[in-house]
Amino acid sequence: MRTVSRSASIALDVSNSTSETEPAAAAGGERREAILVAAARVISRSGVRGLRVEEVASEAGVSPPLLYYHFASRQGLIRAALQRASDKAPSAALRSEAGEMSGYEAVEVALLAELDDDRSVRDNAIVWGEVGATAVFEPELRDDVRQVTETWSATVAEAIRRGVEDGSIRKGIDPEQAAEVLITLVDGLCNRWLAGAMNRERARELLVATLRETLRAKD
Amino acid sequence: MRTVSRSASIALDVSNSTSETEPAAAAGGERREAILVAAARVISRSGVRGLRVEEVASEAGVSPPLLYYHFASRQGLIRAALQRASDKAPSAALRSEAGEMSGYEAVEVALLAELDDDRSVRDNAIVWGEVGATAVFEPELRDDVRQVTETWSATVAEAIRRGVEDGSIRKGIDPEQAAEVLITLVDGLCNRWLAGAMNRERARELLVATLRETLRAKD
Repeated sequence: MRTVSRSASIALDVSNSTSETEPAAAAGGERREAILVAAARVISRSGVRGLRVEEVASEAGVSPPLLYYHFASRQGLIRAALQRASDKAPSAALRSEAGEMSGYEAVEVALLAELDDDRSVRDNAIVWGEVGATAVFEPELRDDVRQVTETWSATVAEAIRRGVEDGSIRKGIDPEQAAEVLITLVDGLCNRWLAGAMNRERARELLVATLRETLRAKD
Repeated sequence: MRTVSRSASIALDVSNSTSETEPAAAAGGERREAILVAAARVISRSGVRGLRVEEVASEAGVSPPLLYYHFASRQGLIRAALQRASDKAPSAALRSEAGEMSGYEAVEVALLAELDDDRSVRDNAIVWGEVGATAVFEPELRDDVRQVTETWSATVAEAIRRGVEDGSIRKGIDPEQAAEVLITLVDGLCNRWLAGAMNRERARELLVATLRETLRAKD
């Protein structure tokens, strides 16, 4: 809800503005974010292949030139949308919040949250899957896909390492390898869920079972 | 190579034919297959979203009306391409060949073969991934995606059950759950590989490590 009203107020902003080429830093940041939220919605509705810059601008309530001011090109917009999906992914919380959870609990909570039905999580998951699927045909996107995947993997590996130290994750595990396998499984489950080939509850069940069997320290 | 020359001979066939509406059963079957091979190539080049029926017809060396004779619609063609990717998937061998391998070996060989660099395997993997990715936006495809996924899962579960019986796979495993997790992981690894986010050797390494750790009976 917050995002919707924010994007509406930005639309007002822009219609009152006479110069769009040099927005003040704060408003510029908000507009950039509003455009990326709009891009995620458009991608979530009709995919990366169907994305038209004009539709994103209209959804964000900004003019196409303002969009190009921020992202230079359609591809720049798609790359920024992927980067934002990476920054906003539930697993990103693992980077900032140690909290009171054990390493194991933090990993389970973060990965399960990727299969949440919240709209922004779902939009993000579709952006992630779609940019990856598009990279098969557009090699220029591959470095970006590789980079966000490696960031995600490194984040989860670090949490696994912490779990091994605090005794919640079994010793002898290879944190990098376990992280790579788990995030690949999460991606696969997301794709099944979003494609309607598996219901979300079953996807969560399979993920929890896998985490408990392969990661959690035996009592 | 065989496929190319076969498709070329069919192209000749068609150009010599005056009536295309009632092909003899055998030639009809070959033409149908040639069209599906062509569809896989076109999808592998430019995706499902970019697929034009005329391009597939031209790639197969047949006329668009003949293509419509066999598949009724663009969507009928896409669904048949998915079904063929399922029938021709390396794992499908598990249904016919018991051979001399243990259940564990058969599963490892079949799933690793999904990450083969052979052109037809790669084309098939792209068809599979693309139809799944498209089903996010085209709900009419979801039943098909669910069905081929369930077929694959049941095939692998059956081989796992055999491995439990012959002692090559650990007892106490849930064959259905293990199969669902493993094929989802294989899909995820295929997507990473095809998107250029992971090299194929690493994908195979992660798959083998996972199979050995989670499935194989301890000596």
